[in-house]
Amino acid sequence: MPKVVDHDQRRVALVEATWRIIASHGIEGATMREIATEAGFANGALKPYFPTKDDLLTFAFGHVFKQTNERMAKSTAGHTGLAALRAFCHEILPLDDTRIQEARIVIPFWQKALSDPSKAIVNEESMRQWRSRLLEHLSEARAAGEIQTSVPDADIVGHLMTVVLGAQITALLSPGEHSPARLITQLEGYLQVLSTGD
Amino acid sequence: MPKVVDHDQRRVALVEATWRIIASHGIEGATMREIATEAGFANGALKPYFPTKDDLLTFAFGHVFKQTNERMAKSTAGHTGLAALRAFCHEILPLDDTRIQEARIVIPFWQKALSDPSKAIVNEESMRQWRSRLLEHLSEARAAGEIQTSVPDADIVGHLMTVVLGAQITALLSPGEHSPARLITQLEGYLQVLSTGD
Repeated sequence: MPKVVDHDQRRVALVEATWRIIASHGIEGATMREIATEAGFANGALKPYFPTKDDLLTFAFGHVFKQTNERMAKSTAGHTGLAALRAFCHEILPLDDTRIQEARIVIPFWQKALSDPSKAIVNEESMRQWRSRLLEHLSEARAAGEIQTSVPDADIVGHLMTVVLGAQITALLSPGEHSPARLITQLEGYLQVLSTGD
Repeated sequence: MPKVVDHDQRRVALVEATWRIIASHGIEGATMREIATEAGFANGALKPYFPTKDDLLTFAFGHVFKQTNERMAKSTAGHTGLAALRAFCHEILPLDDTRIQEARIVIPFWQKALSDPSKAIVNEESMRQWRSRLLEHLSEARAAGEIQTSVPDADIVGHLMTVVLGAQITALLSPGEHSPARLITQLEGYLQVLSTGD
């Protein structure tokens, strides 16, 4: 029987190896050789999947986005309005080791996207999807009378996007002030003033 | 007469050259040689000031922080409470070319700080100062009856920090949704619900 290689699975294995390397060395210190070794691959075996570290980083970002969306689908299932909005945001906030690792992929990806238009497009397409989901749950919250503020939905969505993305930075670099518990409380504070104004 | 060299001024000249290089090539593409050329220095002349690109990036971050604080001192002068809080946040939000350039320094610095404890300490010390200023203006706003929400000040400060830092990302990577005008409107929406709850 011919050997069946699951290429998607191999890519994911490589991404997971990248995560472990990045967690200990940072993206700067992660050479393609180290990533290959960590993933149990021969050095040359990486090239067909990811010709450059940049390609690997873009794939890793896509993987984080996909993985986050899968968690969101589960945690928002059966919820609408504010409950769905809250669950959605929680999957992006760095509230556990997995989501902290995700931030460690996303921050270097953003930095590359600043001077790489193709990465900026990948990022913006993902963010467009999230904005559209947030807007949907916000509309449900309005319809259910959970939110009465005169602040337009588009501005609330823009603010929330800045918050969930900003938390990647604050959680990792100021963990004392932005621990998981405090990130949740800070978000609740915002949802509270949106809902009741006091 | 001996030649007088203003070393601080030379460092700032180098940082400004770094900005121009980063704006066109990104931090990745900015070699020490290019930075020296852009600043009108011989290649070797950089070493005494900044032995590595990392040192230059740390100095550039400190320069951004200092420059932002100088603007804040001017724009908050004569204001207290919500007006001071608003002016303070505006100096951090990427609302013009200068502040967009600052974000282009800060984002790579954050990325480095993820795996460099000395940079993380520099960052946290700066952020501690900003949190303390935000808390001060928030207390003034409470005292003046400008804010009545039951959300604790510490949670509002944490939220605001996430917003002003997150805006470095959203403004640069999703400029359509986070243009200067929209960043201002999004912040106003938050200050409005804090103040009036509707």
